[in-house]
Amino acid sequence: MSGARNLTAALRRTRVPRPRIVLRPNLPQSPCATVVRSFSASSTRPADKQIKYTSDAYPHVKRDPNFGELTADDVSFFKELLGSQSAVVDGVTADATDDLEPFNSDWMRKYRGHTRLVLKPQNTEEVSKVLKYCNGRKLAVVPQGGNTGLVGGSVPVFDEIVINTSRMNKIHSFDEASGVLVADAGVILEVADQYLAERNHLFPLDLGAKGSCHIGGNVSTNAGGLRLLRYGSLHGSVLGLEAVLPDGTIVDSLSTLRKNNTGYDLKQLFIGSEGTIGLVTAISIQCPPRPKAVNVAYFGVESYEQLQRAFLEAKGQLSEILSAFELMDGRSQSLVRESTGNKHPLEGEYPFYCLVETSGSNAEHDMEKLESFLEHVMSEGIVADGVLAQDETQFQSLWRWREGITESLSHLGGTYKYDVSIPLPELYQLVEDCKQRLTEKGFVGDDDSFPVRAVVGYGHMGDSNLHLNVSVRQYNKDVEKAIEPWVYEWIQKRQGSISAEHGLGIAKREYIGYSQNETMVNLMKQLKTLYDPNGIMNPYKYI
Amino acid sequence: MSGARNLTAALRRTRVPRPRIVLRPNLPQSPCATVVRSFSASSTRPADKQIKYTSDAYPHVKRDPNFGELTADDVSFFKELLGSQSAVVDGVTADATDDLEPFNSDWMRKYRGHTRLVLKPQNTEEVSKVLKYCNGRKLAVVPQGGNTGLVGGSVPVFDEIVINTSRMNKIHSFDEASGVLVADAGVILEVADQYLAERNHLFPLDLGAKGSCHIGGNVSTNAGGLRLLRYGSLHGSVLGLEAVLPDGTIVDSLSTLRKNNTGYDLKQLFIGSEGTIGLVTAISIQCPPRPKAVNVAYFGVESYEQLQRAFLEAKGQLSEILSAFELMDGRSQSLVRESTGNKHPLEGEYPFYCLVETSGSNAEHDMEKLESFLEHVMSEGIVADGVLAQDETQFQSLWRWREGITESLSHLGGTYKYDVSIPLPELYQLVEDCKQRLTEKGFVGDDDSFPVRAVVGYGHMGDSNLHLNVSVRQYNKDVEKAIEPWVYEWIQKRQGSISAEHGLGIAKREYIGYSQNETMVNLMKQLKTLYDPNGIMNPYKYI
Repeated sequence: MSGARNLTAALRRTRVPRPRIVLRPNLPQSPCATVVRSFSASSTRPADKQIKYTSDAYPHVKRDPNFGELTADDVSFFKELLGSQSAVVDGVTADATDDLEPFNSDWMRKYRGHTRLVLKPQNTEEVSKVLKYCNGRKLAVVPQGGNTGLVGGSVPVFDEIVINTSRMNKIHSFDEASGVLVADAGVILEVADQYLAERNHLFPLDLGAKGSCHIGGNVSTNAGGLRLLRYGSLHGSVLGLEAVLPDGTIVDSLSTLRKNNTGYDLKQLFIGSEGTIGLVTAISIQCPPRPKAVNVAYFGVESYEQLQRAFLEAKGQLSEILSAFELMDGRSQSLVRESTGNKHPLEGEYPFYCLVETSGSNAEHDMEKLESFLEHVMSEGIVADGVLAQDETQFQSLWRWREGITESLSHLGGTYKYDVSIPLPELYQLVEDCKQRLTEKGFVGDDDSFPVRAVVGYGHMGDSNLHLNVSVRQYNKDVEKAIEPWVYEWIQKRQGSISAEHGLGIAKREYIGYSQNETMVNLMKQLKTLYDPNGIMNPYKYI
Repeated sequence: MSGARNLTAALRRTRVPRPRIVLRPNLPQSPCATVVRSFSASSTRPADKQIKYTSDAYPHVKRDPNFGELTADDVSFFKELLGSQSAVVDGVTADATDDLEPFNSDWMRKYRGHTRLVLKPQNTEEVSKVLKYCNGRKLAVVPQGGNTGLVGGSVPVFDEIVINTSRMNKIHSFDEASGVLVADAGVILEVADQYLAERNHLFPLDLGAKGSCHIGGNVSTNAGGLRLLRYGSLHGSVLGLEAVLPDGTIVDSLSTLRKNNTGYDLKQLFIGSEGTIGLVTAISIQCPPRPKAVNVAYFGVESYEQLQRAFLEAKGQLSEILSAFELMDGRSQSLVRESTGNKHPLEGEYPFYCLVETSGSNAEHDMEKLESFLEHVMSEGIVADGVLAQDETQFQSLWRWREGITESLSHLGGTYKYDVSIPLPELYQLVEDCKQRLTEKGFVGDDDSFPVRAVVGYGHMGDSNLHLNVSVRQYNKDVEKAIEPWVYEWIQKRQGSISAEHGLGIAKREYIGYSQNETMVNLMKQLKTLYDPNGIMNPYKYI
């Protein structure tokens, strides 16, 4: 390949150490489809510890006395309505504690509710009847998809009824000409993507939980994920949706049209509202053609300034084929190495690493662009070392250094997680400042007498989205108080967002004021009251 | 170029006539920036005819008696508030008919109001004070940007006060790392794009009126335009906005963050609501890097079926670099030829033509992809003939065959315009059916005794967006009655949209029920009442 020769020649002219780049001429057609990045609840759930009830962790949150109490009559109504035995998990008239547990608690084992009833409607009409009944009886509910959230948004706090969408899992249609998929809310993201892969298309969203999360939950939480940089936000790609309001009204806005300027775009209100004004039952979404070639490179970088330069170069040179630019700091990668025992792809150690992915329609063109980018960033000394995946196995293995961080951290004890947006120049400064603050307070150290093991940063640099994680040996109120609200004030000063993509849930509801002004919060409350005057939809959370 | 040789060789093997493709090795860096596609009001405005008042054309629309009447005191208040002489066009205490005329009527000369007062606030605080005062006095208002709309949305019907944004025209900031532009609502689209061109970025919206329209108006009407196919909808690219509610509340949601999941995404309600719930004063928008290479090809196609195949091939093969796929039927192109006297780019006549544009970061790669696409569609007989722009002049000239249609039609008399979304397989059928219907009724003919000169179809095929235009020698109520509501019923049966990108305005407000069900319309009315209880914002329009 001529590109390879050019690259080698260019490297000879430079002073930087020659990176161990292995060029990969081609990749199987749709590698993304076979990459398994899903996590299961069990893999991160130590069996030796009970999960604390959210009501105990948040003692100032009280059950709303206006809400009704579940009775045997209510359960009879739901059983008759939903018909099937498996559609109702009944802890009201029977003992079903074990069966209820997976619906009461989250995969991080951080939040745990007291629900005694789980309903699994099979279609929109059933959801409508359930909600209408609940609204009439003022029974609070929690919509629940794959229950993979990170802010406690999809589990109850007290005895809210869980409405789980897992039985609403049909793909309705896909039109190849327009690329529009119509599917039930309960379809698992990976299932939708596999279905599309067989039709040479791609679901325009990808995230670690894809093997478990539901597309309805993705839309309800406005999930961002790994490739927002390329495929944009769900506010742009979701063309229509169907949802049920608390009073049972079915909002049928399941348009498959790319353009439809006939009135207020009400569907947008359901995207990211975390089930607080209605329950999303189906979506239609614009799906792009599946890329024929996908490449991934992994770099070591000497400073955050160089990392920013690398990103600007990637944006400029890889342009339309750039599909991910992920940042991982040195500590996050050493934690993955310690936890997995895997050999790190680079020989030296660097304060920063980044993963650059391209997705395009022509493998040769993409490789040429990538080579030219590599040649540039290496000859200019912007990156210090790097590898390029040579085959599907290496592709997956490189991605695991990014995607394995969450799981590696979970093996080490507790983690205080902050998912934030900060303007790029100061993005990583938050990690430095947090580390310094906790160190000065004497919390950070290598031996077990220190509560904090590590302060790490990683995330979607292409979207200015940082995940600040404070890994602790055990949850510690003093550490928590040293971080919060300091971290939110820090973000507020930079006009950042205290929740970039994870949402508010119960974890951040009290902190919304750091990212939204009073007028905005008041307007939000006004909307909540308009659609859910009894406040039954996912209470104690969001705004 | 090896590509050229391959192409020639491929063509020798095929039975289709050899297309006159001229390969263009390269294009200047940012051709879009120099393409002038704007139209001026004067060029389409025959001087010989007065515009009919909208109140006469819609006699059943009555002035709302709850609205206040403008007094000299009101004018004094506004003059004092806005200070500058030029900020108030006062037809209340003085005769200003001529000065008011451009604000009272639209560029199509279809709609004309009776305003006696135009206000041009210079900043958000002034807009807030103006609206608060108007709301208190129940004085109705019409927000107005560049006044380039097609549905009468930006001119008054009766004596509504025009709030024109032309003096709010500052660009606040642009950040090269994130590509985020923050600018006032009154910045002209082309000015914003030129500013970005100097910084190697692109405004993610392009449309014929770019030389006049305001970006605030674009956002308020959710403009679609020529490259939505590539850069997506404004619901995805607008990151934040600032707007003023009728009661003077400033909605400051001018975030520049790509990801911000902290509450309901209220800004979405202002995108496409045509100034009926608030006045957009500033926006922040995600802008992509400017493509380094842009190519355009123009084809003759024998049937609509082949055109659909061509689109699918373009989508599959050009993939990430496809930036426009425009449809023009034979009649639309003969009208442009007759009107401009220009030589048509192809020798033969075809029932369909299409324009395919690519935008990418590498001229050589793009050309290779385009050549491979051309080779395929020609050797398979999918297209019958074609040309490829060889230089900037040809690039502009080919685009003019698409963009000149509106103006050519306007020289011929009146035009009944329908901007609709229809699923791709039936997209063009509407033109055929409409032509047949009007022909059967004896309306269509070549000599001047027939009211209808031509029924033409063109549009953004890549977005399933058709512009059906019925060109008439003079406006004719019988012709209108033969088209409406038949055309809306036709679209409703196919779950299409009666307004793809032009909006509702006054032109389509009564027909919203053809594209939105009763529940949706009721929910929209509920929102309108919530934000604008006195109904002063752009009354008599929208929902």
